[in-house]
Amino acid sequence: MNLLLLEPQHFIDERHAELDQRQLRHVLDVYQANKGDELRVGVINGRVGSGIITHLSAEKMQLEVNLDNPPPPALPLTVLLALPRPKMLKRSLQHLTALGVKKIILMNSYRVEKSFWQSPWLSPEKVREQLILGLEQARDTVMPEVILEKRFKPFVEDRLPALMAGKRGLVAHPVGGESCPHLISEPAVLAIGPEGGFIEYEVDKLEQAGFQRIHLGPRILRVETAVTAIVSKLYD
Amino acid sequence: MNLLLLEPQHFIDERHAELDQRQLRHVLDVYQANKGDELRVGVINGRVGSGIITHLSAEKMQLEVNLDNPPPPALPLTVLLALPRPKMLKRSLQHLTALGVKKIILMNSYRVEKSFWQSPWLSPEKVREQLILGLEQARDTVMPEVILEKRFKPFVEDRLPALMAGKRGLVAHPVGGESCPHLISEPAVLAIGPEGGFIEYEVDKLEQAGFQRIHLGPRILRVETAVTAIVSKLYD
Repeated sequence: MNLLLLEPQHFIDERHAELDQRQLRHVLDVYQANKGDELRVGVINGRVGSGIITHLSAEKMQLEVNLDNPPPPALPLTVLLALPRPKMLKRSLQHLTALGVKKIILMNSYRVEKSFWQSPWLSPEKVREQLILGLEQARDTVMPEVILEKRFKPFVEDRLPALMAGKRGLVAHPVGGESCPHLISEPAVLAIGPEGGFIEYEVDKLEQAGFQRIHLGPRILRVETAVTAIVSKLYD
Repeated sequence: MNLLLLEPQHFIDERHAELDQRQLRHVLDVYQANKGDELRVGVINGRVGSGIITHLSAEKMQLEVNLDNPPPPALPLTVLLALPRPKMLKRSLQHLTALGVKKIILMNSYRVEKSFWQSPWLSPEKVREQLILGLEQARDTVMPEVILEKRFKPFVEDRLPALMAGKRGLVAHPVGGESCPHLISEPAVLAIGPEGGFIEYEVDKLEQAGFQRIHLGPRILRVETAVTAIVSKLYD
């Protein structure tokens, strides 16, 4: 945790906050903090800055908060991710959030196992936990939006065109297409397939929706590695 | 496993190989392979291609092997990594190998905990296991070289200059320096600090050795994410 994320209910007044028990335990165990110490803090969907510990006991901790900076800029990127297996889903949500992605669409695809849609890790509370871990890692405060699209065709045909307005569409696919571009200037929508990749029908449908195939060379990378690689090439 | 890695002792003659028991179990359990199936294979430090299953029983499997392609190109990058904690070490070795790094130097730094150097995961057998997992992931065959440098100053002063010959030195550090460059044409040496980063003395020493500070913006990324991000920016 590189940032202590506060929520509105933690604030006593404009400049003072009191931690809840989970945060208190974490600060005591991990930071081994003392009265007078300064911690990096942020407010969910708000600014970041520092918090000086003004009161500390085993039951209670108060901070004097000075929120003097905006959160880091968001990436101008929407990610369409074929729903990964639960373990990968947790990691991918944390990872995309840490990178600065603010819109994540988990969608169906032929090679997504049906059981993945039953995962308890898709509940809003569990999703939120992973997003918060990603924000804390990257010292960000702005919660990403996560959308579930359980049917590929209606999503791509009916809702994707509106999402694409003014954006460049890129689908990561090892066959055909060009090497991933560097330093594009426009916002983009990036589609990433499941383990084993999209089937050709799906890539065709995405191409009809205006997506361009890109690849990362002959190495097969895991989904989260591929996402980091593409994001890093596209934007500075 | 996207590639079945064979070693010289598996070959019966130039075109035929017999798997060992560990590989046989894996092929039976994971691939659920049958006689006549074609698998992607490669030879350690050699070529890649296909293997057709010519004999398959619970005790024995033989392949007719056709090695018609070179492995994917290596990255022209040496990575100096401050020794991470054991769990991160495993992941980082796999990860760097999958990306195509062929020279990995695990080095000491002020913020590396002394106990990390005692980890059983540093034994040559355990390191090799992680490298093989990385090669199998990326369909590569060429084993990286892993070097341990337990003392920072003698390494940086005495041995690093020879490693740097003809290469660009880059040290990832959040303070000072410029944004990571894109698409450089020369080989490079990339230094990555421990959790909490290099101390200023260490960055100074690396700068004296010809390294240039680079950063990845205001987000704090995990070591393996930072490595992927930098590699992806530097090379196509």
